[in-house]
Amino acid sequence: MVISEKNTERNILLIDCLDAKGLVPKATNVIFKHGLNIERNQEFVDQADEHFFMRSEIVGTADRELLLADLAEAMPQDANIRLKEKRKKRIVILATKEYHCLGDLLTRHQFGDLNAEILAVVSNHEHLRDYCEKFGIPYHYVPTQGIGREEHERAVLDTLEAYDFEYLVLAKYMRILSSEFIRHFEHRIVNIHHSFLPAFIGANPYRQAYDRGVKIIGATAHIVTDDLDEGPIIYQDVTPVDHSFSPKEMARAGRDVEKIVLAKALKIVFEDRCFISGNKTIIMR
Amino acid sequence: MVISEKNTERNILLIDCLDAKGLVPKATNVIFKHGLNIERNQEFVDQADEHFFMRSEIVGTADRELLLADLAEAMPQDANIRLKEKRKKRIVILATKEYHCLGDLLTRHQFGDLNAEILAVVSNHEHLRDYCEKFGIPYHYVPTQGIGREEHERAVLDTLEAYDFEYLVLAKYMRILSSEFIRHFEHRIVNIHHSFLPAFIGANPYRQAYDRGVKIIGATAHIVTDDLDEGPIIYQDVTPVDHSFSPKEMARAGRDVEKIVLAKALKIVFEDRCFISGNKTIIMR
Amino acid sequence: MVISEKNTERNILLIDCLDAKGLVPKATNVIFKHGLNIERNQEFVDQADEHFFMRSEIVGTADRELLLADLAEAMPQDANIRLKEKRKKRIVILATKEYHCLGDLLTRHQFGDLNAEILAVVSNHEHLRDYCEKFGIPYHYVPTQGIGREEHERAVLDTLEAYDFEYLVLAKYMRILSSEFIRHFEHRIVNIHHSFLPAFIGANPYRQAYDRGVKIIGATAHIVTDDLDEGPIIYQDVTPVDHSFSPKEMARAGRDVEKIVLAKALKIVFEDRCFISGNKTIIMR
Amino acid sequence: MVISEKNTERNILLIDCLDAKGLVPKATNVIFKHGLNIERNQEFVDQADEHFFMRSEIVGTADRELLLADLAEAMPQDANIRLKEKRKKRIVILATKEYHCLGDLLTRHQFGDLNAEILAVVSNHEHLRDYCEKFGIPYHYVPTQGIGREEHERAVLDTLEAYDFEYLVLAKYMRILSSEFIRHFEHRIVNIHHSFLPAFIGANPYRQAYDRGVKIIGATAHIVTDDLDEGPIIYQDVTPVDHSFSPKEMARAGRDVEKIVLAKALKIVFEDRCFISGNKTIIMR
Repeated sequence: MVISEKNTERNILLIDCLDAKGLVPKATNVIFKHGLNIERNQEFVDQADEHFFMRSEIVGTADRELLLADLAEAMPQDANIRLKEKRKKRIVILATKEYHCLGDLLTRHQFGDLNAEILAVVSNHEHLRDYCEKFGIPYHYVPTQGIGREEHERAVLDTLEAYDFEYLVLAKYMRILSSEFIRHFEHRIVNIHHSFLPAFIGANPYRQAYDRGVKIIGATAHIVTDDLDEGPIIYQDVTPVDHSFSPKEMARAGRDVEKIVLAKALKIVFEDRCFISGNKTIIMR
Repeated sequence: MVISEKNTERNILLIDCLDAKGLVPKATNVIFKHGLNIERNQEFVDQADEHFFMRSEIVGTADRELLLADLAEAMPQDANIRLKEKRKKRIVILATKEYHCLGDLLTRHQFGDLNAEILAVVSNHEHLRDYCEKFGIPYHYVPTQGIGREEHERAVLDTLEAYDFEYLVLAKYMRILSSEFIRHFEHRIVNIHHSFLPAFIGANPYRQAYDRGVKIIGATAHIVTDDLDEGPIIYQDVTPVDHSFSPKEMARAGRDVEKIVLAKALKIVFEDRCFISGNKTIIMR
Repeated sequence: MVISEKNTERNILLIDCLDAKGLVPKATNVIFKHGLNIERNQEFVDQADEHFFMRSEIVGTADRELLLADLAEAMPQDANIRLKEKRKKRIVILATKEYHCLGDLLTRHQFGDLNAEILAVVSNHEHLRDYCEKFGIPYHYVPTQGIGREEHERAVLDTLEAYDFEYLVLAKYMRILSSEFIRHFEHRIVNIHHSFLPAFIGANPYRQAYDRGVKIIGATAHIVTDDLDEGPIIYQDVTPVDHSFSPKEMARAGRDVEKIVLAKALKIVFEDRCFISGNKTIIMR
Repeated sequence: MVISEKNTERNILLIDCLDAKGLVPKATNVIFKHGLNIERNQEFVDQADEHFFMRSEIVGTADRELLLADLAEAMPQDANIRLKEKRKKRIVILATKEYHCLGDLLTRHQFGDLNAEILAVVSNHEHLRDYCEKFGIPYHYVPTQGIGREEHERAVLDTLEAYDFEYLVLAKYMRILSSEFIRHFEHRIVNIHHSFLPAFIGANPYRQAYDRGVKIIGATAHIVTDDLDEGPIIYQDVTPVDHSFSPKEMARAGRDVEKIVLAKALKIVFEDRCFISGNKTIIMR
């Protein structure tokens, strides 16, 4: 039953567990008994892993703790159950020198069109400070000169400590993150990769694309995991190029597709539509 | 729970009705009590109409009549409940002179790659007889010369009578069908339209596109309803063109997008993923 | 012959006229005799109009007046010959309330990634002043209250008088311009249209798209002529949507495609790749 | 000057050589002196290699030998000059078991919509014989059992000997060709690769795509050179997929993009729009 958005609480319920019979009725019975309405429900069983995934958009004032307790009882013991309020996420952005993804996010944010609150920008360069400060976003420069990766990451972690954020967005952050750093924010770091993965891993992707004479270039937004450039893919898109594009012009075309791909991936993540299943994502519409 | 495809029955359950609280648990409880497993479930509430749609892919040997009776009891009185076996659909194709959509469907069919059995092709011209007969598909020529539309449609209906088909596919059938004809096959006729609807309705769409100097041409597959070219859209896609394309070359580029769009739309329809909601479709993934 | 970009002048020569034999050798002989090198040359004859179009990218220090005089002598009397320096164009942007196209252009401009110098923004609302002023771009508010269209356009023209601009970019400027206004800047106004033209002309395009249940929405950048929304199309692109998109979400998806389409069209225009031929464009690569 | 297509000869002139000043006027002067008209002319200088490429579409009855001799005199000594009649190419297709690319080409061919005459199909399997023979195309089965690659290739070459073809089209031919075989047909073999190159090189590309959880799959048509899957790319395109696609469904989606990409690439090649420049193509529009 659809009720006016104004006076009603809205939550997203995410459940995943090993598949078994009757999971959909068991979970939705609990929701129903709590007097809540399911406005959108999507369930998917990954046949390869026999794993069950369900996303429910539920409307009504929920007694969150009791609801979670009842769901935990109804679902299998291994079930991963999360109840998320439908609201803006709190994020911190990591960037380096390139402006396009950051600029796009800050502009959306400024006009209330990003489903998130940007708490701060952290960068290993000063290049983007001026731009960020135009928008009143705190900018933290964490230099890398004269220190090792470990020390630099510690400094970044110290900086992040001040912020109660849910997601870390790598908006063309050009440093490789250690496994240890990533483990602090499991499944909470989103990266935009300068290529249609798995092609052109590594440095100078547009030079590589030019040298290879490709007719299409792409971009990939993914969850960051231990394996560099190998985390679960959230969204990808491409744009056509041709022989008349220099590497510089390819990079320019790439910037447009990168910023849109990152924004679309963040929309998916911030609306709690993205399950992680091993090295893949399940995206619920 | 996922069970090997070989020894198991698979059905698609489609339910739609006015939205109310508890519909998902009510319907899925019935499925569970029948000992059936839900492998994929997608529910959507159209907020504008307060209408509920659910598609469930269920596995296990079903007592179909009892299941439908129990569902009818559990669901609201107005509910539209359909239980469809997961199998190839039986179709008849209507065509005129153009080969590309028909050729694509017949070739897929020949290699078991169309989710349908093509029972026959009916045409108002003889042009495609030779091609169809290569594939052993019965070809019925229903001429229009010297008779009115009504009489011609009656002759087509007479021809169709011999076939127990579920869908009628208009693969570039260039005759306008009367409301009366369409009413015989409500929501069971799929058409491919030579344009990115709602643009370029009418004759010579590629000439129109050329005259307008468009940079993209498209195609639209839709359910046929009373309103010519105005039925619910199932799938659309586009392809880029430029000033160097003559109207003839635009038509050629259009043929490629038309045949792929029709094939993708038919895959959706034949897998029972398409609900009709007024003048729109709800496509379940 | 390619010479290092640093120390060399680069010009774009654009010629169009009724087609005749020998136009390519005649024009290129003149260029050769002036000691200039052609790095890229593209010629196209529109067969419908028997009209000849040629764009040459030429390198070397040109005696511009003598070159133009020699070309005028070599070419037919009706020939339209333009020699343009390869450099950033000077532009003024007209906007209303929507931020996305303006924000995209200002951000590119800020980082030297727009092939133009933005001289000013003129708007019939105050909404975007704050954003523009962050970037130090003069913002002129020309209110419409209590005055007619004619008077408002005169006020806009007065404001524009202060700027020596080459192109006027309508970045979601939601006022209809009079023929008289347009005539001041023939072929020098670029508009972004909220739709895949010719579909959904008029107000509330995303509502129209939603009501029609389209599976794709698009955007069209075009040269502004007398016929509203009917000027020569420069660039178009689309993005997929589905039944789960509300009109608001369709508009949001539309914003992304609008801003990229406008930016790509402006790149074409600012690089002098766009000929106008009646109601169509010829885009040279 | 555009003259009616009926009574006029049309040729494509292709010239490439080291760049130098005055090449366009020199070449086009010769064409003009022969009384021929240039209807479309495109020149491009690859800045990295300082190499000049020009494609001219010329209309009028040419004294081919004299024209070529005059061009050879006017152009630098190293120039590669080819004059090609605008007509259907003669081709032989190599296939294995998959039907989709072959079926698409044979159907286009049957209805006069392929810019080529298919002389024969050669396969290492019998699977497609029945389909080819429906269309009256000679089918040669060259088995691989009990013989080495060298011997098999010799048998294929012997089979090809009977045909005076210009291009060899690999329509999902699943055998790796030796350098020696390829050298017989330099720049005359076109392949369709089951991936958005350079991603997913090797066997089971759709399994790889599934395991990686990609959101887009693509296809690449390229000229075959010594380096397996590394020849110059002619055309690429992609199609969206998601987590609900099994490897089998990804392959099915892949087939649609493969057949269209191959057809578009062949259109480019058969219209003599494709120059080879090292490991890249220059595609003239």
